[in-house]
This record gives sequence, C-alpha cells and structure tokens, in this order.
Amino acid sequence: MTAEIICVGTELLLGDILNTNCHYLAQELAALGIPHYYQTVVGDNVARIHQVLEIAIKRSSILIFTGGLGPTPDDLTTEAIADYFQTPLEERSEVIDDIAQKFAKIGRKMISSNRKQALIPVGANILPNPTGTAPGMIWQIASNPDPVTILTFPGVPSEMQRMWQDTAIPFFKSLGWGQDIIYSKMLRFRGIGESSLAEKVNHLFKLTNPTVAPYASKGEVRLRISAKAPSEAEAIALIEPVAHQIQEIAGLDYFGTNEQSLTSVVGQLLRDRKETLAVAESCTGGGLGAILTEIPGSSDYFRGGVIAYANEVKQSLLQVSGDDLAQFGAVSDPVAQQMAIGVKKALNTSWGISITGIAGPGGGTEEKPVGLIYIGLASPDGTVESFEYRLGNVRGRSLNRHLTVCNALDLLRRKILIISTFIRI
Amino acid sequence: MTAEIICVGTELLLGDILNTNCHYLAQELAALGIPHYYQTVVGDNVARIHQVLEIAIKRSSILIFTGGLGPTPDDLTTEAIADYFQTPLEERSEVIDDIAQKFAKIGRKMISSNRKQALIPVGANILPNPTGTAPGMIWQIASNPDPVTILTFPGVPSEMQRMWQDTAIPFFKSLGWGQDIIYSKMLRFRGIGESSLAEKVNHLFKLTNPTVAPYASKGEVRLRISAKAPSEAEAIALIEPVAHQIQEIAGLDYFGTNEQSLTSVVGQLLRDRKETLAVAESCTGGGLGAILTEIPGSSDYFRGGVIAYANEVKQSLLQVSGDDLAQFGAVSDPVAQQMAIGVKKALNTSWGISITGIAGPGGGTEEKPVGLIYIGLASPDGTVESFEYRLGNVRGRSLNRHLTVCNALDLLRRKILIISTFIRI
Repeated sequence: MTAEIICVGTELLLGDILNTNCHYLAQELAALGIPHYYQTVVGDNVARIHQVLEIAIKRSSILIFTGGLGPTPDDLTTEAIADYFQTPLEERSEVIDDIAQKFAKIGRKMISSNRKQALIPVGANILPNPTGTAPGMIWQIASNPDPVTILTFPGVPSEMQRMWQDTAIPFFKSLGWGQDIIYSKMLRFRGIGESSLAEKVNHLFKLTNPTVAPYASKGEVRLRISAKAPSEAEAIALIEPVAHQIQEIAGLDYFGTNEQSLTSVVGQLLRDRKETLAVAESCTGGGLGAILTEIPGSSDYFRGGVIAYANEVKQSLLQVSGDDLAQFGAVSDPVAQQMAIGVKKALNTSWGISITGIAGPGGGTEEKPVGLIYIGLASPDGTVESFEYRLGNVRGRSLNRHLTVCNALDLLRRKILIISTFIRI
Repeated sequence: MTAEIICVGTELLLGDILNTNCHYLAQELAALGIPHYYQTVVGDNVARIHQVLEIAIKRSSILIFTGGLGPTPDDLTTEAIADYFQTPLEERSEVIDDIAQKFAKIGRKMISSNRKQALIPVGANILPNPTGTAPGMIWQIASNPDPVTILTFPGVPSEMQRMWQDTAIPFFKSLGWGQDIIYSKMLRFRGIGESSLAEKVNHLFKLTNPTVAPYASKGEVRLRISAKAPSEAEAIALIEPVAHQIQEIAGLDYFGTNEQSLTSVVGQLLRDRKETLAVAESCTGGGLGAILTEIPGSSDYFRGGVIAYANEVKQSLLQVSGDDLAQFGAVSDPVAQQMAIGVKKALNTSWGISITGIAGPGGGTEEKPVGLIYIGLASPDGTVESFEYRLGNVRGRSLNRHLTVCNALDLLRRKILIISTFIRI
C-alpha cells in the first residue's frame, strides 16, 4: 500500500502560490509510516485530472487530493473523480445544513453556488471541514480492479490541516497505519565538506534501519539518521549507536543535533563556564552580534560589542593602533588581534572575537582579494590569536558575510572544546 | 509544445524541504509563455524516475528536472535519464576542469566523488553552473519518436535560479518563446496594512493590462504591476502611469520599487546629503548594523555602532546615565534618547539611531510587556526624539526584532524626507 499526493490548481502551475500543502502532507505521511513515492500537480481541468487519476491508481492505492473543492466553476476535483469512476453525485443534506449554519453565524445567507459543495459521489463518506465550507471525502472504492481509497481536501492550508488532524489521521490509524513510527535525528557538522564527510561515513549509507542520508545547507553539512520502530524509545535505540559512531568519526567537526545551532552550542558552552563574550565587527556590521542575540537568554553570556565599520571607530573605541592600520591595513592579522583585545577590554568580558575583511563584491586588490577575512580571538588567559580565511568572490557578499559569522562562532566553539579537554586531562 | 517540471529528491517525499524550485520554475515558465500542465515529484530511485519519464515524454515536449545532480550515490538523475534513452555517459573534461578550479579557489582539492558530476550523456550540451559544482544539461533528443528536450538543474535553489537566468532563458528565447514579454514592477510600502492599501487602490485591481495585485510580506506591503507587451519599453509605458497614480495615493508610505529596500533607500538619502550614521543596539544585538552593511558601499555613510546588550555597556560606551537606567529602566524613552545621542557623539556622525526593547519571549512585565520597543533618533541639528512601539508577544522574538530594525530604518527615512521637503519649500 502506497500513497500519492495529487494537488489540483491552475494557480500552482502559474506559480502564483507555493505548494505548502504537499510539504505538509509529505511530512504527515512520513510520520504515519505510509510509503509515498510520487506527488503530482495538475490544473483545474477534467481531462487532465482523469489522466493523472489513470496513472495514479495503477501505482498507488491511497490517493490524497488537495484543491478544487470550492464553490466556483473552476473547482472541478470532486466532479472529475466521480466522473472517472462513473459514479453519480448526490446532494448531502447534512453538508447543506452545515454550510447554511456557518453562513448564519457570520450573519450572511448561503448562496446558490455553495450548494455545489454538498455534492459527493454515492458511496463516499464525508470528511468534515470544521473551519470552512468545503467538505472533503473519504471514498473507499472496492469495486475498482485494484482497490483504491481517495481522500479529498480543500486547498486552503489551515482547513486542510485541521481536517487531516481531526479525521484523516484517525482513519489511517484505524487501518493499522501509524503503529510503527519514524523517528529522525539530524547531526550537524562544520569545517568539513559534504563530499568529504560522505566519504568518511560511506559505509553507513547502506544501512536500512536506521538509514543515514546527507543534506547540505548554507555553511554546514547535515546527516539525517532515521529509524522505523513501534515506539520512539525503540527508534532511538536503533539511532543512537549509529549517531555515536558518526560523532566519533567526525570529531570536532560535529557540533550538534538538529535542535542545536552553532550559536546555541557556543552559548551553552559559555554559560556552563560562566564566561562572557564581546564582539568587534567590521565587514559583518553587527551580524555576529545579531545571531548571538537570536537566542533568548543570551544576555547570560553576551554583553555586546562595537561595530567598527570605519577605521576611526577601530582606533577610538577599540584602541587599534593607527600605525598598524596604516602599515598592515584594516584587513590584517594585527588589526584583527587588536580589535579582539580592544573589545574584550572595553566591555570587560572573558572572550573577545573580532572580524575584519573584504566581503565584496568591490574593495579587493591583488594582495587583499575579495573574500579575505581575519578573525581575532582573545581568550580569558590573555592570549590572542587570529585566523585567515580566503572565501573568494564567487559566493557573493551576503554568503561571505554569513560564512564569516559561522566561522567566528565555530572558532570559539573549537577553542573552548580544546581548552576544556586539556583541562580535563 | 508544453513543458513539465519533474523534481527529484527523496527529501521532498519525506517532507524535509519545501519545494520552492517548482514554484520558481512555474513562475518563470509563465513569464516566458510556455504552457505547463503537470508537475511531478519523485524520489532518488532509478526505476521510478524511468516511470515518470515514460509518462512525461508522452504528454510534454520539454522536461525540466531539478535535483539529484550532486556527488553522492543517491544523486541519480543524470544516470537515470541517460539510461532511459540508452545513451552512454561520457566524462566532460571542461566540467572536471571547472570543478577542480572551483575547489582550488577555496584552497581544497577535488575528491573522486566529484568526478561523477562531470558525466553527461553523449549528445547533451552542458548547462553551466557558475556558483556550484554540479552542472546541468540541455539535451535535445531528436531521435525519440516525439522529439523531446530535457533540461536538468541541481536542487540548490540559488544555483538553479542562476543557471535558469543565465542559460535556460536565452535558450528558450532562441526557440521563439518569451517574445511577448511580461514585465513587472513591484512597489513597496511601509506603515500601511495590506487591506488599508487595498481599499485605497481598489479601483486599480480591475485593470487587465497592466494588472495590479497585492502581496504581503514580513514588515511591508507590496503591489505588483505587470504588463504584457512585445517589448520592455512598451510594457513600461503601460506600467508607469499606474505606478505614479499609486505613489501619489500612498504618499510617504511608499518607499521604493522592487530593486530598492528600506536599507538602500535610506542609504541613498544619506549619501545624497553627505551625512553619516551610527547605531546603538540593545535588543536587536547588531541586526540594524548588519542590515545596513548588506549594501556594498555602505561605508560611504555608515560608520559603525555599539551593541549595548548589557546595561554597563550603555553606560561605559554610550554615556547613558546610571540614574536614568535605575529610575526609568533600560527600556524607556530617556535611555533610547541617550543611547542615540551617545553613539552619535562617540562615532562623530550626523545621525544616531538607537534601539532598546523587550524582544521576548521572556523578560516582559505588566508595565513593560514583551514587544515594547523604544527607538531613539538623534538628528544632525542636535535634537533627539524617541518613538514607542508595542509589537506584542504573538509574533515571536525573531519577527519582533526584524520589525524593529525595519521601523528604525523607516523612521530615519521619513525624518530625512520631511526635512528635505521642508528645506525645499
């Protein structure tokens, strides 16, 4: 038994709306453990809906339709389905009553076009719509050569979702689905490329339960471990040994699970150590401070910083040497180090991080090209280091800035972990 | 000739990601005038990709694939397509060179799994990927009983979009599509709700060429004016009178067109007036500085600022009175005003903007609830004002912070426009 999602709506083909319904239903089917291999979008057109049905009933036994249940003439889904199975439509009085009541509640009268929404194929059950006027249906067509079950939902996401939760989930559970749950854990990595990580854990991609699959996203790589089991505890028991194995292989490149971010991991490390942080930002203009303060409660460890976009600000608020600015330039190791020390001192914190660089697209020279970034890190013990990055000019200003903020967080994370391990030994 | 979009990726079936690629491509096909009746999503599985191809080539003559071009073993799209048409794959040296160069630029070595991305069916043309390692292809298969053209794109939206714009659009135009162009102008508004603006311009929604349609997005409202005409100049001639009419109706609530943002509009105003700006941020933690410096060249007018997350920083770097902090609290008119004056003085700028507030979800009291924000504005003439906002607790921390940054930019924009008009009179 496999399911197929069929979204009906010319507005989807024209790109007027984003297909969030398909995304929602895909997640819900995965959660119930119902296999689902195809999604189709088709316009408000009876002949083409018939074509799609013809294909779908050959390969799937549960067809989930969204869209095309409204009162206007271009809403054709119910009609097209009934027609395909040569089944007449009948007006359901309970639907008429329900629609009339809903209109009465908002002081309006039901109009004749709404009567259309009460037409349901003979033999189908109504799938009630508590928040809108368009009901759906659950139609188990045993007479078909391959038995098929059709569910229809309106296209309005909030109505569809409520109907799914209230009626469809209990229906599928009564058929025995959703007994085995699918549970996933996402592991997040930084400082290693997708292909390099994939090579290291290649042997795990062949596992079947749990499965391991890679995902790339901006500035990090993720591996998803998914297990199918009768309970969450049993799924976790399948996942954890594999997760530990991957974490061992990845070492410091592993930074957290899905609920964690580089920012939250760094924040927790600082909180645990009762240490504070200040930032000095040039080319990121406040982006590092902004991401640190996305976390509620970040005031426990984050005190603030200086956005030193102009060189004069680097001198006046961060005590960067004017001579060094002249000699080495604003984008240099010495200036990054002095910015980190300066902000640590000015804000009286345990740690100071600084960023200075050329985000692009302009401002690069042969010696100092676009993408050249220095990150300074002043530690609680009074030492200071700086790190050079060459991000290049291909990714664009915005991504260069984002990666730089992530690099700064990751440097601090690695530094704290290395210090902690050292102390522990 | 009709097109069909086929998105390949098990992550789409599992509901891990939202299918924004399909939405983008649907809009682009509509803009080119290429009819498109079906969209299909299928997993990373050769047999099922074959099934989908079998169906699609019977009903569509242009197949647009996204996803499954990466270096890992589950990326099977190219292989599955070549196999279906019984065409061998060949390694293209220009792709190998391109990938190697991209790796070299970021100081890494190409690894063996990337070689897979250089395998393209014999007879297919490469569709270059300027920003990533996975190229696509344009394959015109004349030998097929019904001639079919296949285009493939990687699943990463930014890469796919760039490839579409750079190569696919010129390709389709060379085939005669997109001669009547659809040209749009987006007008952007701030400080007025979608329904209020809609009421004011209601009479324009009935127009057919150009059409006027509203879009709501985070922190602003947009109206899109679209015209269809044989040339861009003719489309613009249809659009401009309507755009002017709307701008007159909206007054100061209109801030720019699509290429403009609040940030770029404010930046241009400051640049024109040869004025400079500094920011003092508490609850936004650097978000205002970060958005101001998204714009290349913002150093012309933005000098930097102070992230004064802790109260001690407000006192030490911004000279906020400790007595006032104690008496009125950090989230208050007097503190916002002193922060704005303080940062203007410390960074020696024409303007100082400050933000202090309770972003949530915690930290609110009955007197000072979550969402209470004060924005201070110190002007070149030495005056200072502050503005109170009550954003409430329903939108969440992230949106409250975003709206606050937008409010700060908008305050400065309105202030400068009012001053300029006054001087002009």
